[in-house]
Amino acid sequence: MDGQDILDLLEQVRRGKLSVTQALARLRHFPFEDLGFAKVDHHRALRQGFPEVIMGHGKQPGEIAAIVRAIRRQKANVLVTRLSAENMAKVSKLVSGLEYHAAARSATWIGKPIKITGKGTVLVVCAGTSDIPVAEEAVLTASMMGNHVEKLFDVGVAGIHRILGNRRQLAAASVLVVIAGMEGALPSVVAGLVDKPVIAVPTSVGYGASFNGLAALLGMLNSCAAGVTVVNIDNGFGAGFAASLINRI
Amino acid sequence: MDGQDILDLLEQVRRGKLSVTQALARLRHFPFEDLGFAKVDHHRALRQGFPEVIMGHGKQPGEIAAIVRAIRRQKANVLVTRLSAENMAKVSKLVSGLEYHAAARSATWIGKPIKITGKGTVLVVCAGTSDIPVAEEAVLTASMMGNHVEKLFDVGVAGIHRILGNRRQLAAASVLVVIAGMEGALPSVVAGLVDKPVIAVPTSVGYGASFNGLAALLGMLNSCAAGVTVVNIDNGFGAGFAASLINRI
Amino acid sequence: MDGQDILDLLEQVRRGKLSVTQALARLRHFPFEDLGFAKVDHHRALRQGFPEVIMGHGKQPGEIAAIVRAIRRQKANVLVTRLSAENMAKVSKLVSGLEYHAAARSATWIGKPIKITGKGTVLVVCAGTSDIPVAEEAVLTASMMGNHVEKLFDVGVAGIHRILGNRRQLAAASVLVVIAGMEGALPSVVAGLVDKPVIAVPTSVGYGASFNGLAALLGMLNSCAAGVTVVNIDNGFGAGFAASLINRI
Amino acid sequence: MDGQDILDLLEQVRRGKLSVTQALARLRHFPFEDLGFAKVDHHRALRQGFPEVIMGHGKQPGEIAAIVRAIRRQKANVLVTRLSAENMAKVSKLVSGLEYHAAARSATWIGKPIKITGKGTVLVVCAGTSDIPVAEEAVLTASMMGNHVEKLFDVGVAGIHRILGNRRQLAAASVLVVIAGMEGALPSVVAGLVDKPVIAVPTSVGYGASFNGLAALLGMLNSCAAGVTVVNIDNGFGAGFAASLINRI
Amino acid sequence: MDGQDILDLLEQVRRGKLSVTQALARLRHFPFEDLGFAKVDHHRALRQGFPEVIMGHGKQPGEIAAIVRAIRRQKANVLVTRLSAENMAKVSKLVSGLEYHAAARSATWIGKPIKITGKGTVLVVCAGTSDIPVAEEAVLTASMMGNHVEKLFDVGVAGIHRILGNRRQLAAASVLVVIAGMEGALPSVVAGLVDKPVIAVPTSVGYGASFNGLAALLGMLNSCAAGVTVVNIDNGFGAGFAASLINRI
Amino acid sequence: MDGQDILDLLEQVRRGKLSVTQALARLRHFPFEDLGFAKVDHHRALRQGFPEVIMGHGKQPGEIAAIVRAIRRQKANVLVTRLSAENMAKVSKLVSGLEYHAAARSATWIGKPIKITGKGTVLVVCAGTSDIPVAEEAVLTASMMGNHVEKLFDVGVAGIHRILGNRRQLAAASVLVVIAGMEGALPSVVAGLVDKPVIAVPTSVGYGASFNGLAALLGMLNSCAAGVTVVNIDNGFGAGFAASLINRI
Amino acid sequence: MDGQDILDLLEQVRRGKLSVTQALARLRHFPFEDLGFAKVDHHRALRQGFPEVIMGHGKQPGEIAAIVRAIRRQKANVLVTRLSAENMAKVSKLVSGLEYHAAARSATWIGKPIKITGKGTVLVVCAGTSDIPVAEEAVLTASMMGNHVEKLFDVGVAGIHRILGNRRQLAAASVLVVIAGMEGALPSVVAGLVDKPVIAVPTSVGYGASFNGLAALLGMLNSCAAGVTVVNIDNGFGAGFAASLINRI
Amino acid sequence: MDGQDILDLLEQVRRGKLSVTQALARLRHFPFEDLGFAKVDHHRALRQGFPEVIMGHGKQPGEIAAIVRAIRRQKANVLVTRLSAENMAKVSKLVSGLEYHAAARSATWIGKPIKITGKGTVLVVCAGTSDIPVAEEAVLTASMMGNHVEKLFDVGVAGIHRILGNRRQLAAASVLVVIAGMEGALPSVVAGLVDKPVIAVPTSVGYGASFNGLAALLGMLNSCAAGVTVVNIDNGFGAGFAASLINRI
Repeated sequence: MDGQDILDLLEQVRRGKLSVTQALARLRHFPFEDLGFAKVDHHRALRQGFPEVIMGHGKQPGEIAAIVRAIRRQKANVLVTRLSAENMAKVSKLVSGLEYHAAARSATWIGKPIKITGKGTVLVVCAGTSDIPVAEEAVLTASMMGNHVEKLFDVGVAGIHRILGNRRQLAAASVLVVIAGMEGALPSVVAGLVDKPVIAVPTSVGYGASFNGLAALLGMLNSCAAGVTVVNIDNGFGAGFAASLINRI
Repeated sequence: MDGQDILDLLEQVRRGKLSVTQALARLRHFPFEDLGFAKVDHHRALRQGFPEVIMGHGKQPGEIAAIVRAIRRQKANVLVTRLSAENMAKVSKLVSGLEYHAAARSATWIGKPIKITGKGTVLVVCAGTSDIPVAEEAVLTASMMGNHVEKLFDVGVAGIHRILGNRRQLAAASVLVVIAGMEGALPSVVAGLVDKPVIAVPTSVGYGASFNGLAALLGMLNSCAAGVTVVNIDNGFGAGFAASLINRI
Repeated sequence: MDGQDILDLLEQVRRGKLSVTQALARLRHFPFEDLGFAKVDHHRALRQGFPEVIMGHGKQPGEIAAIVRAIRRQKANVLVTRLSAENMAKVSKLVSGLEYHAAARSATWIGKPIKITGKGTVLVVCAGTSDIPVAEEAVLTASMMGNHVEKLFDVGVAGIHRILGNRRQLAAASVLVVIAGMEGALPSVVAGLVDKPVIAVPTSVGYGASFNGLAALLGMLNSCAAGVTVVNIDNGFGAGFAASLINRI
Repeated sequence: MDGQDILDLLEQVRRGKLSVTQALARLRHFPFEDLGFAKVDHHRALRQGFPEVIMGHGKQPGEIAAIVRAIRRQKANVLVTRLSAENMAKVSKLVSGLEYHAAARSATWIGKPIKITGKGTVLVVCAGTSDIPVAEEAVLTASMMGNHVEKLFDVGVAGIHRILGNRRQLAAASVLVVIAGMEGALPSVVAGLVDKPVIAVPTSVGYGASFNGLAALLGMLNSCAAGVTVVNIDNGFGAGFAASLINRI
Repeated sequence: MDGQDILDLLEQVRRGKLSVTQALARLRHFPFEDLGFAKVDHHRALRQGFPEVIMGHGKQPGEIAAIVRAIRRQKANVLVTRLSAENMAKVSKLVSGLEYHAAARSATWIGKPIKITGKGTVLVVCAGTSDIPVAEEAVLTASMMGNHVEKLFDVGVAGIHRILGNRRQLAAASVLVVIAGMEGALPSVVAGLVDKPVIAVPTSVGYGASFNGLAALLGMLNSCAAGVTVVNIDNGFGAGFAASLINRI
Repeated sequence: MDGQDILDLLEQVRRGKLSVTQALARLRHFPFEDLGFAKVDHHRALRQGFPEVIMGHGKQPGEIAAIVRAIRRQKANVLVTRLSAENMAKVSKLVSGLEYHAAARSATWIGKPIKITGKGTVLVVCAGTSDIPVAEEAVLTASMMGNHVEKLFDVGVAGIHRILGNRRQLAAASVLVVIAGMEGALPSVVAGLVDKPVIAVPTSVGYGASFNGLAALLGMLNSCAAGVTVVNIDNGFGAGFAASLINRI
Repeated sequence: MDGQDILDLLEQVRRGKLSVTQALARLRHFPFEDLGFAKVDHHRALRQGFPEVIMGHGKQPGEIAAIVRAIRRQKANVLVTRLSAENMAKVSKLVSGLEYHAAARSATWIGKPIKITGKGTVLVVCAGTSDIPVAEEAVLTASMMGNHVEKLFDVGVAGIHRILGNRRQLAAASVLVVIAGMEGALPSVVAGLVDKPVIAVPTSVGYGASFNGLAALLGMLNSCAAGVTVVNIDNGFGAGFAASLINRI
Repeated sequence: MDGQDILDLLEQVRRGKLSVTQALARLRHFPFEDLGFAKVDHHRALRQGFPEVIMGHGKQPGEIAAIVRAIRRQKANVLVTRLSAENMAKVSKLVSGLEYHAAARSATWIGKPIKITGKGTVLVVCAGTSDIPVAEEAVLTASMMGNHVEKLFDVGVAGIHRILGNRRQLAAASVLVVIAGMEGALPSVVAGLVDKPVIAVPTSVGYGASFNGLAALLGMLNSCAAGVTVVNIDNGFGAGFAASLINRI
């Protein structure tokens, strides 16, 4: 039963061929999954100025190009994450106009200007230089979603003065994305210095008993500082997205 | 917007106060979650003669008694799983008529006769005597769900003749629930002897490197015999339930 | 003691050289493994129209070609799973007539027509596009085993309307194979919407704390929806096979 | 060098006994940890109307009572989490006026009225009845921190209509705390229905392969729905706290 | 088809009512599982003078007593392992004559004298005093199975002279059972000093990162000394049993 | 061959009854494990004024009392670790003179005065009040081993000013034992502030994803600050012991 | 102090320049590690006709060639395990005469004839064709160590008749090496059929939840059949070596 | 507020425009992170003659060259760890003068002579030849940090005489770095022979159940020998660094 079916039913009611009670009974039993019009709007993100996001990892260049073309027809902005430089080169041959952000291993296509709709500043903090690709992914995501974003990189806890020396910047942020590999201690320290939400991102930076980011992940989940929430290992996009949602409340 | 709202809307259509197109437009936008009539029927199990199931573990005797009383008012059959003897004693003081099945650590209340609706025989097989409580939970579940159920207990693979000596019984079953702790090898052997679906249940029987059933679970997931599917450790109920669904196809 | 030995023994009985009791005593003690004639028929699958299955992973193209040739001499159908496109190319040079199914990473050879012997429809559902190779393996397996198979792809739980919008198709299936990576939540949702057996297949799709499918596997084993059973990570073949067994009860 | 030292130094500057440059040089080298006045204000939470929080688990009743008395002298509100009923009984004998919240296994003492300073509604959602203690801890925490809090309990994904039937309540919330044990799928479904931040709380509800909440934790970290962040297993307090920070941005 | 069926068949052959070829054909097709007489003799251990073994853990005193009585009727020796002193006390009230070995947490009943049938000496070595219960279980098992058994206890690798000072005893043994908790290094050192098989038993002795014996288990599996094989954590019985089998080759 | 044997051999050489070459040949072949006099001196710790240490956990009060009596006969100091108050009460009835240190869950008996032989100060730092038992065990161990020991407790990283405010004390120490549960971040921060060896002790303080100290352990092993070494979870004794060895170099 | 030192000392005794007591005192204190003559003979294996074994994995072709040359100078037999075909090609260019065993991924050089010194037959059993490389490594090792070795391959438990059909061969063996990947159930079944020691070898054959052999390893450690001992994953050499030691008792 | 601000403030005090009390009040509230002059000196290592360390793994040759150039301008010594030979070749083309240490997979640049400032000898011990790269990294690190370093390689516990034969060298060391893969037993044995601090380094040498060094790591953490502390898997640099700190106390 689709829209036409309902039109017919309503027409019959209008004509008196079907009583109101009968119509109700029939409406009651047609499954909502067939309504069509009741479908959840999966374009909510789009309408809010959020970009369409393509997870580049595991997709063929051809697939990525096809999706990008489809989205662009809708004039939406596009963010392709986890796109290696060599895959970017291949995609570029298939679809033009994508801008590559090497540090974030991501590409973007801006179909309409990004308006800053986030209320405050999203501050992306990372512990070491090896964490920067994840951090830049978060930065790019939050920027594409209409936030003012600042960076504070390479401020690991082994040199605590580096964090302390930037307390003003920490205090000025509305939401903080804090990224660290190895022991993942940075979010605890940062969360103790601010009274804003901290989204912690463990990275797979490390070796041996880091177990590809497990150590950092567990550390962040066990943070002794209240107010820390955690996303998946290396999930800079997820952190940037969550920060954007928070920054609009 | 509930049923009354729709009645009103239809009434307006009938009276010509609302055009068919307008009505359609309004119907299009009322969220299905408010329909009421579109709600998924969570009583399906009940209508099919399945019992209402209460997971007794972690519930207070008072809670269990209250739920039992509520269900009984609907004349439904009741199955309470993971109910220790001492909790059963406490529940019994609060609500009468429950029958306790010590071997299955479960209690039942039969409000209406159980009809055998399962097509063939559900055969519950277990490896050792320590696996029997899980096996009996599966037996009781499948029985309560209207199946003919048979048991074949204590036929672990270290004495392979015990299984082989019962091949006829294995071959005659429609669905097999095969339960084992320790290395969990029994389902592979059984599945190699029959051409019917085998539901494997790992148990927490064992010590040391059994890691509370993990060894058996992994073994069953890696079964070299096709046709084996697996449920959670010690989940006799789940296996009995799945076997019942299979036995009705 | 082989067939000839028994013939001799029987001959002696016939001639009266051996009493019936003596013969029984001797028969009693000859080990069954030497009977020969008592061997379990491992061709059961074949007789039922099931294909012979070759796990292509880890086998050399030459080995695969040899096995395919051997099976084809028996006029059996052949299914080669986990066969990469490049290995297929190598195998094709050695043996002709194999059809390659790129989406399922599998090859088939149909020696005799496949008859639909499964009772109802096997519905293969998957959460994301990255799960499709596993899903197609399940589809191909069930098809080769004589089932009517339908697909419902890319209906992950983050857009719940996609599942709900296909409830009719879900409800019409006899057995459901539900495939998901990442958090593996789809089988729980689907099992709550149908009253048919659901075989859940975790996939290794994901990164970081997905631990190559462990997260999805654990999620499915802990499903809050009764009736879900689980196979190994990425085991589309196993799920298709189990679904086929269920669909014949 | 403490405050008196600085006073002396300044006095010398005032008297001309120490040049401005000399004073600067000395100030430069006194370690900030001795400043005393530069200490980070750990009372920030307090000043904002947040309660002082005592983790009751692992503390003796005497210890808890002593801390409560100390805090009350500062007229701060007090929240004692993870306090069993029997420990509450013991604490009550030592300090009066604590109110016990059995469902949240927590106690509170309200020294000054709680003002609603949170902007929107914090909605606490949980999957099953066994998750309620964790959910109530989140509710109580967010309430004590000045938020309007609503509850939506027992809406697990196996009965998806239960969530869908409450979409309006979901959509109206500013921040959502979504709590589930077993497979932990609820946050993914909820996050797909709203465009607000979702804080996921895995619980240790389950058995066998739930591994005390590990399955739910991994599931939530791998959520296919963007916007989900995660806290530690059973950490209702942490989720309530983070939600409160978010609700003030 | 049981023994009587075969008798009938043979009788018919004898009478000439059934040709030898016909009889063979019929014998060929009766399934071996029904033979009865072909059953694997599970009394092999018994015949060789091995004791019947009851795993006491997880069994009720009544069950243990019943099994002991049953075995004693067969004049077999009995070994009850993992029997706590308090359970022994309860069992003793139900069945008399059991001897308790407190150090091995086991009980025995000797129905017939144990003959030494093992060829050489089984030497049971353990690292620390906390490993002694497992060691004594191995000693008792091997003794009950007819071996000359010697002990070398408390010779952990942190005091390497303790092992070296007993090299003669090590060298004189035919089979060595080497037991250690914590890091489980002792088997490697011992296996480097002898050229006899070493059965390594990890114990759950330790805390923290010993993870209940996992550290010792992994250590032993990775032994740099060839000739080491490993049994389950705390499995003194299994090691004693395997040593006995080896000692009879 | 013991000392007497060698004396005899030497006597024969002296008397010319055995040539030097013959004597060498015989000496060459007597196994060193029989020398007796070559045994490693396991009393080294004792001679250096270290206490004899008894791990109280898992030992019966009677056993502990017996060992204490034996050691006291040698006038050695005694340290009994992991001794609960109730076990202490039982031990006290069997042997007098033990002093109980409730905070360290340990008992001592001082047979001879402890001399400070450690060169500098051992500073024991811990993150939270729940870590104090482990910290006090480290303090008591190092004190018993002749070190000047200082404490700096409750300086977790969530309030970084607490550590910074004590930098002078940190800088003055020769060796630091840094103890933390939960995410175990404190050693990284401390090691970044000093240039002395830091021994990190993870504790089992925490819940959920702390996995009984695993999170803290992994965090410490992955410390981004060079100079950190780690001991087992809750191993305050081991840290105190290692610190003492370091403090004597 | 080496041999010359002792000669000097003895000479002094002989000349009366050193009293017997003085000599003893000096001997008492020279550390045994300097004796030289007391060194453990690491050539034991060699003397018994065992080959010298080189673990090829992780070594450069040049290194392997150098070691082979060195051993050959001693006329010892050589076994190089874990040597890929391509590395074999490189080694062959550097040193001649090595025979490559492709199935066992190993090379040998026979300097002196291998005598059969093992008492009985070592039977190497494996479950699937993918386990054959590990099985052949065990076969080659045991053969090189002087045993009569037989093979029984591809007898996995999913087709139990394959094992049963070879019971005579199983029963005739003195020691059994049983190799399986996936669920690792074969050793339990085999050990239930024989009364000889069974050395179980888990292999990394499998995928997904086999976790590179962990499933098989845990399964074997938890074998319900007594007499099974286990070696490391894929350790065919270790199993062959241990079997050889057992076969000489 | 920076230095100039303080100068101004002091000037006002001097001029009497600001009272001492007012000045104190203002100083009290300026955040220390802005002081600038209070920054922790991260050049401590440098001043002590320690090299600047670059972790080469994961860095591009260009990055490494740039950092090396920057450090060299400060006349500091440089140590680049985890630098493969092929990356070294690339770096060499960009910056001259680096010396490559192939065995340690590291490069150095010596800007000023290294003075031996460590008090005693750092002895680096390793179990097998495969552990040598990690051992050489520790040797090089400690050497670059001004220590006299000795090596004792290939002394695994399976040939215990190899360690014992070098007891004098062990006893002469001030600090010992003990490196082992597989079961990681060597540190326990060594620590039992000396009374000096032992830093244990697990390596990823091994296969199967070594789980990339986890087995060795757990073994070392559970060492039965007091005085052992542990660093991350393969962390030769960390061990050499910690040993250097210890050797200066």
